[in-house]
Amino acid sequence: MLRFLTAGESHGWGIAAVLDGMPAGIEVSQEELSVELSRRRRGYGRGERANIENDHVLIASGVNDGKTTGAPICIVIPNKDYENWKGKYVPIYAPRPGHADFAGMVKYGFNDCRPVAERASARETAARVACGYFAKKLLEKENIKVMSWVVSIGGIWAQLPPLEERMSKEEIPKKLFYLAECSEVRCPDLEATGRMKKLIDEAREKGDTLGGIFEVAVIGVPVGLGSYVQWDRRLDGRLAAAVMSIQGVKGVEFGVGFEFSEMMGSQAHDPLKLPKRPSNRAGGIEGGVSNGEIIFMRAAMKPIPTLKSPLPSVDVRTKKECQAYIERSDVCAVGSAAVVAESMVALVVADALLEMRGGDRW
Amino acid sequence: MLRFLTAGESHGWGIAAVLDGMPAGIEVSQEELSVELSRRRRGYGRGERANIENDHVLIASGVNDGKTTGAPICIVIPNKDYENWKGKYVPIYAPRPGHADFAGMVKYGFNDCRPVAERASARETAARVACGYFAKKLLEKENIKVMSWVVSIGGIWAQLPPLEERMSKEEIPKKLFYLAECSEVRCPDLEATGRMKKLIDEAREKGDTLGGIFEVAVIGVPVGLGSYVQWDRRLDGRLAAAVMSIQGVKGVEFGVGFEFSEMMGSQAHDPLKLPKRPSNRAGGIEGGVSNGEIIFMRAAMKPIPTLKSPLPSVDVRTKKECQAYIERSDVCAVGSAAVVAESMVALVVADALLEMRGGDRW
Amino acid sequence: MLRFLTAGESHGWGIAAVLDGMPAGIEVSQEELSVELSRRRRGYGRGERANIENDHVLIASGVNDGKTTGAPICIVIPNKDYENWKGKYVPIYAPRPGHADFAGMVKYGFNDCRPVAERASARETAARVACGYFAKKLLEKENIKVMSWVVSIGGIWAQLPPLEERMSKEEIPKKLFYLAECSEVRCPDLEATGRMKKLIDEAREKGDTLGGIFEVAVIGVPVGLGSYVQWDRRLDGRLAAAVMSIQGVKGVEFGVGFEFSEMMGSQAHDPLKLPKRPSNRAGGIEGGVSNGEIIFMRAAMKPIPTLKSPLPSVDVRTKKECQAYIERSDVCAVGSAAVVAESMVALVVADALLEMRGGDRW
Amino acid sequence: MLRFLTAGESHGWGIAAVLDGMPAGIEVSQEELSVELSRRRRGYGRGERANIENDHVLIASGVNDGKTTGAPICIVIPNKDYENWKGKYVPIYAPRPGHADFAGMVKYGFNDCRPVAERASARETAARVACGYFAKKLLEKENIKVMSWVVSIGGIWAQLPPLEERMSKEEIPKKLFYLAECSEVRCPDLEATGRMKKLIDEAREKGDTLGGIFEVAVIGVPVGLGSYVQWDRRLDGRLAAAVMSIQGVKGVEFGVGFEFSEMMGSQAHDPLKLPKRPSNRAGGIEGGVSNGEIIFMRAAMKPIPTLKSPLPSVDVRTKKECQAYIERSDVCAVGSAAVVAESMVALVVADALLEMRGGDRW
Repeated sequence: MLRFLTAGESHGWGIAAVLDGMPAGIEVSQEELSVELSRRRRGYGRGERANIENDHVLIASGVNDGKTTGAPICIVIPNKDYENWKGKYVPIYAPRPGHADFAGMVKYGFNDCRPVAERASARETAARVACGYFAKKLLEKENIKVMSWVVSIGGIWAQLPPLEERMSKEEIPKKLFYLAECSEVRCPDLEATGRMKKLIDEAREKGDTLGGIFEVAVIGVPVGLGSYVQWDRRLDGRLAAAVMSIQGVKGVEFGVGFEFSEMMGSQAHDPLKLPKRPSNRAGGIEGGVSNGEIIFMRAAMKPIPTLKSPLPSVDVRTKKECQAYIERSDVCAVGSAAVVAESMVALVVADALLEMRGGDRW
Repeated sequence: MLRFLTAGESHGWGIAAVLDGMPAGIEVSQEELSVELSRRRRGYGRGERANIENDHVLIASGVNDGKTTGAPICIVIPNKDYENWKGKYVPIYAPRPGHADFAGMVKYGFNDCRPVAERASARETAARVACGYFAKKLLEKENIKVMSWVVSIGGIWAQLPPLEERMSKEEIPKKLFYLAECSEVRCPDLEATGRMKKLIDEAREKGDTLGGIFEVAVIGVPVGLGSYVQWDRRLDGRLAAAVMSIQGVKGVEFGVGFEFSEMMGSQAHDPLKLPKRPSNRAGGIEGGVSNGEIIFMRAAMKPIPTLKSPLPSVDVRTKKECQAYIERSDVCAVGSAAVVAESMVALVVADALLEMRGGDRW
Repeated sequence: MLRFLTAGESHGWGIAAVLDGMPAGIEVSQEELSVELSRRRRGYGRGERANIENDHVLIASGVNDGKTTGAPICIVIPNKDYENWKGKYVPIYAPRPGHADFAGMVKYGFNDCRPVAERASARETAARVACGYFAKKLLEKENIKVMSWVVSIGGIWAQLPPLEERMSKEEIPKKLFYLAECSEVRCPDLEATGRMKKLIDEAREKGDTLGGIFEVAVIGVPVGLGSYVQWDRRLDGRLAAAVMSIQGVKGVEFGVGFEFSEMMGSQAHDPLKLPKRPSNRAGGIEGGVSNGEIIFMRAAMKPIPTLKSPLPSVDVRTKKECQAYIERSDVCAVGSAAVVAESMVALVVADALLEMRGGDRW
Repeated sequence: MLRFLTAGESHGWGIAAVLDGMPAGIEVSQEELSVELSRRRRGYGRGERANIENDHVLIASGVNDGKTTGAPICIVIPNKDYENWKGKYVPIYAPRPGHADFAGMVKYGFNDCRPVAERASARETAARVACGYFAKKLLEKENIKVMSWVVSIGGIWAQLPPLEERMSKEEIPKKLFYLAECSEVRCPDLEATGRMKKLIDEAREKGDTLGGIFEVAVIGVPVGLGSYVQWDRRLDGRLAAAVMSIQGVKGVEFGVGFEFSEMMGSQAHDPLKLPKRPSNRAGGIEGGVSNGEIIFMRAAMKPIPTLKSPLPSVDVRTKKECQAYIERSDVCAVGSAAVVAESMVALVVADALLEMRGGDRW
């Protein structure tokens, strides 16, 4: 069983994670991990913070001579900026709509929202990406690859090969992934990239923010991951939880997803043919089990909830109306969320693979 | 911790579940449970099977004198039709596209798909609804109510009050729920109900099937369910897993969901105002925590994968092309899936409530 | 992952369990399962109830054509006596010392202890033995066998081969197991069996009860079950929890156990030699991992807490002193507990094996 | 739910843990935590390593202004000695009997035992004690206190108040705990302490090691922790797993434990009397539920398996007989194990308390 716990606050000592259940014998490197983390960090629309984040990551345990040992992997990402923040406490009395600020303060009984903001921050996803790196390396040994790209930002849609092709021909996701890696907003359509950047600039000027949609594809997946036998073992449910748990994600779908609702059965399902099924509208999962096709998900992210032109809020001390607290933040982070989703998907797929194959060594 | 395991095959002895973690002191009744199960079963578009299912449900343990005792609740739904099936084994050599048939057979090493079809069948959801009944009764004591209705079937959309109102004014979901209960397809728009029924008739004649979209609303939710502190404790992730795990569901969203992706932050988030927030676009969850507003989800269901006019398949013995196996099935079950979703949502919300309040007695 | 939930009350409709995670392809039979259940039931010192229990057991799901299918296995053991009890409610106002009666009543907020007594009863272990049967069948395919025998009852000790031999030579546990199966008190020393029976008779006459000690041995265990990498994955901890959770068990030890505390390191550990280690004082587990030797546990059971000559208690209504409630019960059930321990050990070992080898089919 | 994962190797970068599920509002301090860690480290018989360990502990997250925030707590204990070890790799080809060396190497497919030794080392328990500190602080708010002392080392037994008194009168454990804190071997009998130290000196001279027995008592426990309703919720099983998972522990018992096996029921159980039960032979748990009395456990630890006068082993390269690898180690660590047991017990009791009372804030 692959399980992990993350820890750390946005402006605290750092971010950490313990990942338990990795088999022994997977080759990994701190350098690759750093590169992986930088994939999450970068992106047009990310705030200045993203640059400060560009710090050392430490694999503090679980690896010997470049290979995993089966022992828990501890990842530590110290906060370069910590010394500047240490001892300073800036309370948040005006909860930011869209954040956990208000609900978290009530839940845990705080007088202000600062402790909520610190932990609910998407900064935490750095630890998820670090854990995901190990899962990806495990999958790599089986030629399973997880890829993501951005489809739309703030209503600007990329021109991409038709969905049917994105889902069924491995070379398409590979190409989209490659192009996305080259785009400042993780969008494989480089013309749309330009328009998205412009929209981000406009939003920044207005003190506003943007969301968008990204896709995740997993290629090389064996038949049989997950199971239909018990509700919580279904691969789609597990993947949905993993991706929905990413800060800002509000919708998740597999294959043609919501469009299924308008189709007739005769048009919706993927005929079985040899040597290959002609379509993959199901997105690689039937009955909660991987069917050997590309696993294909799409997720929607809401706009960043911290706005420079703040939304109406209520001061929790006075109960008077006020403007929401402003904190250094991103304008758009859809590309980053896509990278986090890759990581979460890799962790779920690797976990399902270990269940099927056994988890000691690789 | 509320946890449950279901068991049983579609044509086997029956369906059962053990639900562990219910507090003591919740009033329940076998009659109400029967009614709840009938809510899942009925619906225009359900097959003849649905009528056969209309059998006795037994609360075999965990209840004394009409109240839960804290002990595990065992629910047994014997299969009325079992004597007719006993000893008969009808192999499935032509996997049905859209079902777990093929993937399950490969995973578990069967020679035919019958054992897969038996367990992957949505008949299993009867056990989930039974478990959900107990969760609903717990929530009822806190004036929390879970409701669902169908929004569209096969591309026919109900005319409903605007989404913003459905999500933010408790009387609207209550009314929609009431109307849905009166509709043969669980659709609160009774005019659309008529057109949906007609479409179902047409599909049945063609040997085809239909999917659709449903919504689930939870009213009376306290602030603070779920948590932002660890990815797997986020309420939205847990709810997404629960609903995505329902047979046929391929997409899930909260609040305005995928539409968030086209909005600016200034339009997307829900201002904090007293005495009440003017909108609930977030669908009652911010940062993975319930914020006291209506929890609002939408889910898409694909068309039933068993078609009377079967899809192309491959005979697993001969590897020759053939038509997929045909089995008695439904034409449309979106309304039933909505009821199952109510149950799953109730179980997740009740679990989160027990975490917050403690789980011994109520 | 092998997991199970049991349900049912002592005088209720019956006892049931759902076992999830069994691989497909394990041959099982209802007849063998009945025999296994009878092993728990029988024994000199068991009450009349044990005979009433002698009823039908049903494998309600998860098995097809004599083989497991990977689907959850539901086991139902209806209560033959149910019709006699139905509707009758005999409250327990005088908690029985040694039972959960008092603590359970306070915890769950009951007015009397009946609901506690019903569920806390060791009758529940029938469901555990049923689950354990499936685990044993899985282990059987790998030539792993779990065996138990009684070492002492009420201070009468069996004359057995030295502990060192019981732990290290497979033929000894095999022989002891065979002899135990022939003894009315599960004791391989047939002379001691006679004395134990006599002591049981004496205790019965006095209205008193007895406890004792049993041993569990697992032979054929591969190297590598469990893990040292995380505290909750250690095989000894998992086995200790499983056996300590059996009603009445108050102590558990591995290998020479408590005697280790008086030994020097040079005498305590088991030298590594080829072709075989000369001793197995560790009881087959080093550092939380199986080392290929016999897994050897010992457990102590307290006397049955329901006494015909009752202990002092307090009436929960009046707070006045009184005698504890009397209910039909056993005088001694050490042999039965040993069989339950076999089952629990088999479930833990099978779970660890699935982790190591993968869990789909066998 | 209180859950934690530890990470780190004996000679690696450091030891770390993430503890998830602590409520908000518990006052904690880094200084107290350091003191708690030093309680584990010290002790006559501990090796030179124990002094090197005397380093800084960092609470890296989850605490704000001296109070827990509900967020995961990350504890980091850097290895002072790391710079001396970095890059050096000393393989272990001669597995040490009694350690996980051999079994771990086979399990994870290593060529030598070093990676096993690094993680299986009891150095890891520093992280458990750190987690336990937080649990203890939570319990402190409810006036629940966990205490431990050493009863015997290498066959030398302390003269202590009778077991019956140790278990039933709160002032006795309090006094024993106080005395144990003053003893270099954690033994409340200061005369025995002297003899134990002498035995440790003798063992050290001979290159040998020692084990022993310790007791753990929890006072102030409310009625109702744990539950009889499902096997894995029983408090005794959970406590047994927690303590048995400590490196070197081979036996665990509650109350009079193994002695129960020789008693008659009439002598074994604890009569219910008002205002107080006259005895606590059950050790505070009946039917898997805390009954309000002192929770009382006893555990046996085997001698340290690394001997300066090494045991016979086999070179894993040549399959030739040899002497086991020698590494700097302790002669006796029973007192340290007792402190670790306190921590594990505190974590289990706190977890059960959160289940009962709800887990958001305190």
